[in-house]
Amino acid sequence: MQEHNAQHSRPLEVSRVTVTDAFWHTEQELVRTAVIPFQWDALNDNVPGAAPSYCMHNFKAAARQNASKAAQGKAFVPPAYTFRGFEALPEDPAHPDPDAFYGFVFQDSDFSKWIEAVGYSLAQHPDSELEATADAAIDIVCNAQLDNGYLDTYYILNGMDRAFTNLKDHHELYCLGHLVEGAVAYYQGTGKDKLLKAACRFADYVDSVFGRDEGKLHGYPGHEIAEMALVRLYETTGERRYLDLARYFVTERGRSPLYFEAEDRRRAELDGTAVEPNTNLPKPYAYYQAHEPVVEQTEAVGHAVRAAYFYSGVADVARLTGDSDLLAACDRLWRNIVDRKLYITGGIGGTHIGEAFSYDYDLPNDIAYSETCAAIALAFFARRMLQIRPVSEYADVMELALYNTVLAGMAMDGKSFFYVNPLEVDPTACHRDERKFHVKSVRQKWFGCACCPPNIARIVESIQQYATTVSDDSSTLYTHLYVGGEATVELGGRPVALVMDANLPWRGDGRAVVRIADKSDMPANAVTTATLAFRLPAWAGGEAAADAIRVEGAAGSRLSREVRDGYLYLTGEWRDGDTVTFDFPMQVRMLAANPNVREDAGKVAFMRGPVTYCAEGIDNGAALHLLHVDAAAVAADPDEVRIERTGFHAGAEGLDERGTGEVESVERDIVRLTVPGWRESGDVRSVTGGPLYAAWHPAERESASITLIPYFAWANRGETEMTVWLRV
Amino acid sequence: MQEHNAQHSRPLEVSRVTVTDAFWHTEQELVRTAVIPFQWDALNDNVPGAAPSYCMHNFKAAARQNASKAAQGKAFVPPAYTFRGFEALPEDPAHPDPDAFYGFVFQDSDFSKWIEAVGYSLAQHPDSELEATADAAIDIVCNAQLDNGYLDTYYILNGMDRAFTNLKDHHELYCLGHLVEGAVAYYQGTGKDKLLKAACRFADYVDSVFGRDEGKLHGYPGHEIAEMALVRLYETTGERRYLDLARYFVTERGRSPLYFEAEDRRRAELDGTAVEPNTNLPKPYAYYQAHEPVVEQTEAVGHAVRAAYFYSGVADVARLTGDSDLLAACDRLWRNIVDRKLYITGGIGGTHIGEAFSYDYDLPNDIAYSETCAAIALAFFARRMLQIRPVSEYADVMELALYNTVLAGMAMDGKSFFYVNPLEVDPTACHRDERKFHVKSVRQKWFGCACCPPNIARIVESIQQYATTVSDDSSTLYTHLYVGGEATVELGGRPVALVMDANLPWRGDGRAVVRIADKSDMPANAVTTATLAFRLPAWAGGEAAADAIRVEGAAGSRLSREVRDGYLYLTGEWRDGDTVTFDFPMQVRMLAANPNVREDAGKVAFMRGPVTYCAEGIDNGAALHLLHVDAAAVAADPDEVRIERTGFHAGAEGLDERGTGEVESVERDIVRLTVPGWRESGDVRSVTGGPLYAAWHPAERESASITLIPYFAWANRGETEMTVWLRV
Repeated sequence: MQEHNAQHSRPLEVSRVTVTDAFWHTEQELVRTAVIPFQWDALNDNVPGAAPSYCMHNFKAAARQNASKAAQGKAFVPPAYTFRGFEALPEDPAHPDPDAFYGFVFQDSDFSKWIEAVGYSLAQHPDSELEATADAAIDIVCNAQLDNGYLDTYYILNGMDRAFTNLKDHHELYCLGHLVEGAVAYYQGTGKDKLLKAACRFADYVDSVFGRDEGKLHGYPGHEIAEMALVRLYETTGERRYLDLARYFVTERGRSPLYFEAEDRRRAELDGTAVEPNTNLPKPYAYYQAHEPVVEQTEAVGHAVRAAYFYSGVADVARLTGDSDLLAACDRLWRNIVDRKLYITGGIGGTHIGEAFSYDYDLPNDIAYSETCAAIALAFFARRMLQIRPVSEYADVMELALYNTVLAGMAMDGKSFFYVNPLEVDPTACHRDERKFHVKSVRQKWFGCACCPPNIARIVESIQQYATTVSDDSSTLYTHLYVGGEATVELGGRPVALVMDANLPWRGDGRAVVRIADKSDMPANAVTTATLAFRLPAWAGGEAAADAIRVEGAAGSRLSREVRDGYLYLTGEWRDGDTVTFDFPMQVRMLAANPNVREDAGKVAFMRGPVTYCAEGIDNGAALHLLHVDAAAVAADPDEVRIERTGFHAGAEGLDERGTGEVESVERDIVRLTVPGWRESGDVRSVTGGPLYAAWHPAERESASITLIPYFAWANRGETEMTVWLRV
Repeated sequence: MQEHNAQHSRPLEVSRVTVTDAFWHTEQELVRTAVIPFQWDALNDNVPGAAPSYCMHNFKAAARQNASKAAQGKAFVPPAYTFRGFEALPEDPAHPDPDAFYGFVFQDSDFSKWIEAVGYSLAQHPDSELEATADAAIDIVCNAQLDNGYLDTYYILNGMDRAFTNLKDHHELYCLGHLVEGAVAYYQGTGKDKLLKAACRFADYVDSVFGRDEGKLHGYPGHEIAEMALVRLYETTGERRYLDLARYFVTERGRSPLYFEAEDRRRAELDGTAVEPNTNLPKPYAYYQAHEPVVEQTEAVGHAVRAAYFYSGVADVARLTGDSDLLAACDRLWRNIVDRKLYITGGIGGTHIGEAFSYDYDLPNDIAYSETCAAIALAFFARRMLQIRPVSEYADVMELALYNTVLAGMAMDGKSFFYVNPLEVDPTACHRDERKFHVKSVRQKWFGCACCPPNIARIVESIQQYATTVSDDSSTLYTHLYVGGEATVELGGRPVALVMDANLPWRGDGRAVVRIADKSDMPANAVTTATLAFRLPAWAGGEAAADAIRVEGAAGSRLSREVRDGYLYLTGEWRDGDTVTFDFPMQVRMLAANPNVREDAGKVAFMRGPVTYCAEGIDNGAALHLLHVDAAAVAADPDEVRIERTGFHAGAEGLDERGTGEVESVERDIVRLTVPGWRESGDVRSVTGGPLYAAWHPAERESASITLIPYFAWANRGETEMTVWLRV
């Protein structure tokens, strides 16, 4: 069934890529030194002032129950199920029952996300102490696994009689997915396969329960991720059944009769309750992307993280099975997102109700949801589309998400986080308008529902998996993101290293040097015949930017140049030391939204390279809505915008009574923009208390230089207004 | 305690004012012929397709229980209380239990609102059949009253043991308030006092239960209205204890310790449940205006209808007791609303969460709440401030609410209603954005919670109570609104009629003729010495418009002219036939909002006279956000706006799957405006599917004439976009 497709590619093994990039190395070090240890404390309920996670507590409780039953010589029989809420908390927080499950139904996944980040981190930066901690945690987790392979402490502790009766909302298969992701990463990072084996056993058990065969449950995950995780497990182990199971989940979803509808009914019967309507929306299971089969879907709908995780799995299965209907679905959904539902910050999910995609072109700025995890999920989807077809648009969108919303999710000290990433913030509204209570004006420490911080950790630690892929036939090495580091891969039959120096996101220049690693049989001029493909970023002019890439010296005449789908393909004989230099233009771009986007009518936003900019009140004074960009001047002469490489001093005490947005003093390097413009009415306070409505007259103008900082750097200097879009 | 204050005034008796005004007579006839009969059917669950009200069902059930106990010779002892939800519905809608209470806890008030409108209507338009129906309904209601005077069928049918244990949310005192309002209106309209006596008995019982004395409950209404109703009862009956009770309710509210907090605790004890937090907001009882004493309040907060009903009661008590602290509170709260929280349509209540005031200057257009009832409540408050001090700003705001949001609440056929009155509507958003599900793009038939339609009925039928007041010393007759009709009043010791011809809201001209009604002792030139005071509307230029008012003929030399607080006072000897003419300028006004209002930055709205205008998609094409007003041209030459008196054809079939917004074919007279402007990008559909973000360039302009219709007329021609604020 699998088509051979020379275009298909895959990320390099974690252990064979290093990141030395000034920008990303800083982020990775932040994750390694601040987030991963903090996360471990959080998993173990050791963060003062933060809500306990109960994650390791649950694994320990399950492991203890297993051990006690084993000691009595009989198989462990868990208790009968009782539902204690979507998030179960101890009656007396000071004395949790050591044998009870606490936290959210998906709390197990916190461990899996942590171990995934640890796996990547250990590959980059060996740390025996961390590895020992991780191994001990893995022992506990593995001890919690039932004999049949089942491993979700929520049901193990609450009653296995109800396992797999609420796929829709109880995240068992989501926990499987994260376990697999974590286990593979830890295996790749350390070579240790204990957790991988446990994950395989859980996957095997799920495989024995689910499928189209008679007698099996015809269900699928309520929160997707298992689809792409199982594909990864297949690619790691070579076991075809994991791909088949992923394909089953992807294609069964949304088929009529709807499994979730039937499941809702069955569960209501079990509980003796009425079936509650799932939502007020016309397609109730659209939240789960389960309203119709994916091959019939044309619009990205529902919970944005679930959706993009799902599309990632669909793309994976499409790539490996050659199913053109699935691929067409991915294409349609991708276009819908990119053409109608994508924030200029790379965020997705316009509405907080259901943390979901809103309708086409509905991209509100101040009540945006734009969850950090959703931007991460979009990067997953984009990377997978790239694996199918190296088309630069996928990399453009992936890069947009990574440099902007993903990084905005984390404070510069790595200690507080945004779940919601608005494009416009008035702190007053966040405090006083209940409609905006989901929007925070300062980052928060750690949530009970710990999705975003560990998700940031795992994607930042694995940024190299997004930068580079190698074609399935080992003929072509793709550079999607210009991230400094060294990637080693078998290319044209030889181990080749590409050593990248890059200066993004602040400068567009850099170089890639080819090293032929194994020169044993060719002492003088080691050679391999291969293609290096370099993305031509849309922000640099797209294919017009091909001239910005040069092959140095004699190699230039040895190699053919071809531009295709936004990539420059350099093909021919590569020798050790061959060097490709690039110098992408880094013009400031002043962008307008499609006129269908009501929220952005009459406004512009600024980008430079992959970085989206914003204005903060701390730099520009209050009432950012009274600032106007002199767009005509900037359009006429881009040099009207001042570009300044400068230090950025983060550090502020938290001001939000609901958050803890304290940021430690940190100095980072950024590029700041200064845009010409004007401000209405001088001082807005002078009109406070004045008439609410008065005869219109042309606004009094006071010229103003508008200071813009990278969006990812906002909210690092205390609570202040912010806006990405500025009036013209 | 009562200060004598010559400025204080009161509305004329309902039976002594007639409305012949072309505009308002049409509205009143709509209410009389369409709304009142429909409302009666609704109260009796006879509207096919609409949710049953159960209002008369409940009164009948209570009356039957009373009768059955009376027949057994013993006092009626109601059952023990059981809570069956804030809205109780029969398990089998086809067979409701005849003895059970159904509907909302405040369902009794539906009858009271209906009887109030009927009272006003009968005063204007005698109708023996309607009166007989009303008398029969009153008999049923009075039969439901307990021997002690208590009259709220919710507790009579569900268990009197819990009466007055949930003042905060169970609306008993709200039902008392509406009963009083309805009873007084029916008494004034018909002279019949059966219901009035019942209302007095209920009020007396409440007076025996509540107060500061030891042994009494120190509570007050959860939903205010009883305060102003009791003042009206005092003014109707002369019984001082009703004013004292109103004063108690007004001044006790919000005093520490908070009654509602204690009540919540007590009820939780009774129920054996935990006390639930009232809200996430910092001042939990602000929703009820009960977070602090009103004399300490500085900001209008909480549920907007409750708030403005409360402030109305505070103003009434301040007027009658001369309490300067209460008056100062009214002044502060009025200023806060008018300067920071008032829509240009006269609506209040920016947020649907709690149907409440949002924070200062937060006046969102597309997710506005702006409940019809809140605009009505604002008119109540404004009229009462006018009664304290004849200052034209109060009348300006009252008029704004009445001509715009209040009337927008009802379709032109009187058969469907808006509860929420947004200033900007995109039907797609109403259907697809759950954040906007409270916003309807077409009017709806009748809600289970029937607050707005009957409220519109009672205010429209009593518009004359807002147009004219007479000073307490009978020296001055104030014309606040220019509404055609005849007002008869004792003035300067004689019965005088003022016969008003007016052409608002479309023309500013008209006249008022004085008729000395009782000429028995002065055969030739009947004379009275008095003052007629005429408001100088802000829309006509305020005090500068005094010149627009002329006394015809010789009377001019007999009368002094004085302008004070936006009123022209004409004082001296008035003779039968004396005529005052007026011709207020009706310029189109192009208004901008205070720069603190973020939502309206860069936008203008149009008014002419008291009427606020809007643009609908049906006239202007889709994508109203791409329309721009050529504000400079209009500012330079107001004649750039075309003013056209024209027929307006209402009529459309409903398109909203959740509503029934069908409007019957009706022809009305309106003034339409045509404003010069331009539209961006020609056809927005050409960019649909195009790139979401692209380099900014100056918008392509296509000149456009923007058609504006009165805001109150919107959504009468099918589902379409609408906006009040237009980009400049």
